[in-house]
Amino acid sequence: MADGTADDAGRGPAVQDLYPDDLARCYGCGRLNEHGLHIRSRWDGDETLAVYTPREYHTAIPGFVYGGLVASVIDCHGTGSAALAGYRAEGREPGGEPLLRYVTASLHVDFLRPTPLGPPLEARGQIVEVKGRKVVVGITLRAGDLECARGRVVAVQLPPGMALGASASRQP
Amino acid sequence: MADGTADDAGRGPAVQDLYPDDLARCYGCGRLNEHGLHIRSRWDGDETLAVYTPREYHTAIPGFVYGGLVASVIDCHGTGSAALAGYRAEGREPGGEPLLRYVTASLHVDFLRPTPLGPPLEARGQIVEVKGRKVVVGITLRAGDLECARGRVVAVQLPPGMALGASASRQP
Repeated sequence: MADGTADDAGRGPAVQDLYPDDLARCYGCGRLNEHGLHIRSRWDGDETLAVYTPREYHTAIPGFVYGGLVASVIDCHGTGSAALAGYRAEGREPGGEPLLRYVTASLHVDFLRPTPLGPPLEARGQIVEVKGRKVVVGITLRAGDLECARGRVVAVQLPPGMALGASASRQP
Repeated sequence: MADGTADDAGRGPAVQDLYPDDLARCYGCGRLNEHGLHIRSRWDGDETLAVYTPREYHTAIPGFVYGGLVASVIDCHGTGSAALAGYRAEGREPGGEPLLRYVTASLHVDFLRPTPLGPPLEARGQIVEVKGRKVVVGITLRAGDLECARGRVVAVQLPPGMALGASASRQP
């Protein structure tokens, strides 16, 4: 991990670690993007959890976290949570075939207060709806004891054509 | 600019270039954040415009732009547009005292289609409302001829205490 810190040791594999290589390049959550944030999502009971510690340069005004980073954490934890929920809805373990990989259709973030820069950010996802190819996830983001943002992600399953395109691009 | 590319030469100063040093550290749009994106917003008639070319590693799935980056462009162009609109509403030139600097209260992005990675992203802002300390901005984001995302930013003027805190932190 060249950039970003994933504070999630000891909690087992995250769903993003189970994506096939050609779908693991995302700047936000791809394990193979050496410049990326490496956001990682896993179940924590009936909620999903991602913990990320911003870098010192992820600042807005001095002392507070950049809102675009908060949005990025919510975005990737939203699609990761959608994948977890999709597999659970089908009674399958994350990562199995056929592959479930989601992209964001819409993203909403309410910034409740400035997010202090320093402590790990804890994003918790609640699965609101799993319907067909769509999953809706509500996310709360805390820094320490402070609830700083609330988000809502509508995620849709990656169209087979896009996934195939990604796979095809790896062929010699 | 150590990171990110601002394709806006010849259009005159952007509002972010006029922020005082202690409010110019934002990862998204601060000219003094050497790791940041350097998003820059200016008037283009009655619309506001920011143009940003993603780096090759700002990818989601291969060939497409990371949604969190799209959200970041919309976020910072939203607060930049809010500052431009706030000054215009007061009949003042951008950058003058008393300072107008905005932060994001809420951010919404609808991803209309996957954003191709390669061409510059053009974000155009329409000022929806200027009311007291609040500005609402609608933003469309295009890659070439393709409209890829629509956003809405509710921006509020930076509380004086936060601005003072930032200034105070620079004192020896």
